[in-house]
Amino acid sequence: MTEAELEQLVAQIAEEILSRVPAAAPAQRGEGLNIPSLVCPDCTGRCAQTCEKKTKEIVAAGACRVSASEKLTRIDSSLSSLIDHTILRPDATEADVRKICAEARKYVFASVCVNPYWVPLVARELRGSPVKVCTVVGFPLGATTTANKCAEAAEAIAHGATEVDMVLNVGALKSGDLPTVEADIRAVAETCHRGGAILKVILETALLDDQQKVAACQASKRAGADFVKTSTGFAKAGATAADIALMRATVGPHIGVKASGGIRSYDDLKAMAAAGASRIGASASVQILEQAGQK
Amino acid sequence: MTEAELEQLVAQIAEEILSRVPAAAPAQRGEGLNIPSLVCPDCTGRCAQTCEKKTKEIVAAGACRVSASEKLTRIDSSLSSLIDHTILRPDATEADVRKICAEARKYVFASVCVNPYWVPLVARELRGSPVKVCTVVGFPLGATTTANKCAEAAEAIAHGATEVDMVLNVGALKSGDLPTVEADIRAVAETCHRGGAILKVILETALLDDQQKVAACQASKRAGADFVKTSTGFAKAGATAADIALMRATVGPHIGVKASGGIRSYDDLKAMAAAGASRIGASASVQILEQAGQK
Repeated sequence: MTEAELEQLVAQIAEEILSRVPAAAPAQRGEGLNIPSLVCPDCTGRCAQTCEKKTKEIVAAGACRVSASEKLTRIDSSLSSLIDHTILRPDATEADVRKICAEARKYVFASVCVNPYWVPLVARELRGSPVKVCTVVGFPLGATTTANKCAEAAEAIAHGATEVDMVLNVGALKSGDLPTVEADIRAVAETCHRGGAILKVILETALLDDQQKVAACQASKRAGADFVKTSTGFAKAGATAADIALMRATVGPHIGVKASGGIRSYDDLKAMAAAGASRIGASASVQILEQAGQK
Repeated sequence: MTEAELEQLVAQIAEEILSRVPAAAPAQRGEGLNIPSLVCPDCTGRCAQTCEKKTKEIVAAGACRVSASEKLTRIDSSLSSLIDHTILRPDATEADVRKICAEARKYVFASVCVNPYWVPLVARELRGSPVKVCTVVGFPLGATTTANKCAEAAEAIAHGATEVDMVLNVGALKSGDLPTVEADIRAVAETCHRGGAILKVILETALLDDQQKVAACQASKRAGADFVKTSTGFAKAGATAADIALMRATVGPHIGVKASGGIRSYDDLKAMAAAGASRIGASASVQILEQAGQK
């Protein structure tokens, strides 16, 4: 199969799956982001006049912050609120983390996503801004204990995190031990909700077959997760439009779907949003805004 | 510079560094492994008769379990006791972990090294054997909090682990915050020692310059670590002979040095042992024994 054929196949599968979902429009949980899938496929992102097609799409998708007369520039300015501005490299320095925070304040990204050690610094840096503090738990292997994932989440929340991205127990999932997978997610979800935080569950799709992806989405939904999320960014591959479509089709419209891993351009973001993503994890967030003409 | 020139340069640097260490022979802490650097460079590993050269080397290096009349086959059978038989892939299944345990019992590896979730299973599988249970903490990014690393270590020890491999706070080290790096290691070392376990500190050498590697080794030694270790196996590169030599030169003969990441052959193992490694982390452990003629 050629690469073009593969791409076409993926696009067709995504379309087919989306056509079967009652409300194919992406949704999200957790306040702070109310404009899902806001990018109309034909828009350059640079036009300043009202774009009827796009506005209709957005309203149809359930947006509650956009009126039909909203100008496209206003709409596109909310692009940044789709993005978790992310720095999870182990060698990220204090200066790197401060820089990410400054960028997040400036462009009003949805959150800054960092490793747990940096949460107190990020909470200080973002104080007074609408940007959330997001961290990761059991990251990136998902193979720590449930007790430890809960402790990690609780500590991060105490330090100021209001969004927690946990990696599910991939090994248990691959062993067919779904009860363990679900109990693990449920315990962390309860810890997060008790602390007023939301939980995103990272599937690490690159390691799963489609059946496992579906099972993981179903377990996440049953366990009370607020989002399912594709990737850690540390596996051999990241988000794909086909995976986003499959995850959206599985969880339905009332849970968030976050695309992450390898999203480096505005085109990548548009593809993910079109497939059903309601949040994007990216390190190249500022570059993405530049490409969208928003910087 | 050609590859051959580079290799020669590395070998020369290693030799130079080793020549300056008072007792260049590798050592180890923690019982269970008393035959450091046991592979003589010219030996095929298949000869059954006494090998005078090798025996002399081993005794000179401080071995206490080998007499001058020990036969080479006996000596080489201890090769396995150099190796932490390791499976840290996030998608490792229960069946994979059981297989590793069975292999470890059969060949008497030093330990089985797994992610924390698998510690209770491994402790059950290895019960009654001399093979240790080893796990990882703050792994593989090192960017969790000190409190969480301690909790993770304490829980693993309660579940049966007696060896803990922690990743130091790479981000703090790269930020020049050595007090944080050392305090992090000290807290985990105290937790481990209180629980009767030993601590290995993973530097993730691929992310550090030589000055940072030396600083990390010094901090580990001051903080009471039992081993320094090169790599997680999840970074862009793993152990190199030059790094092992530098680490051995820095910590001296009374702390263990573990080479890990990318060690897939008997030749790799010999190079690491010759450079000063007293423990090897490997997934291809059985293959290494095969190549050494020990299976």
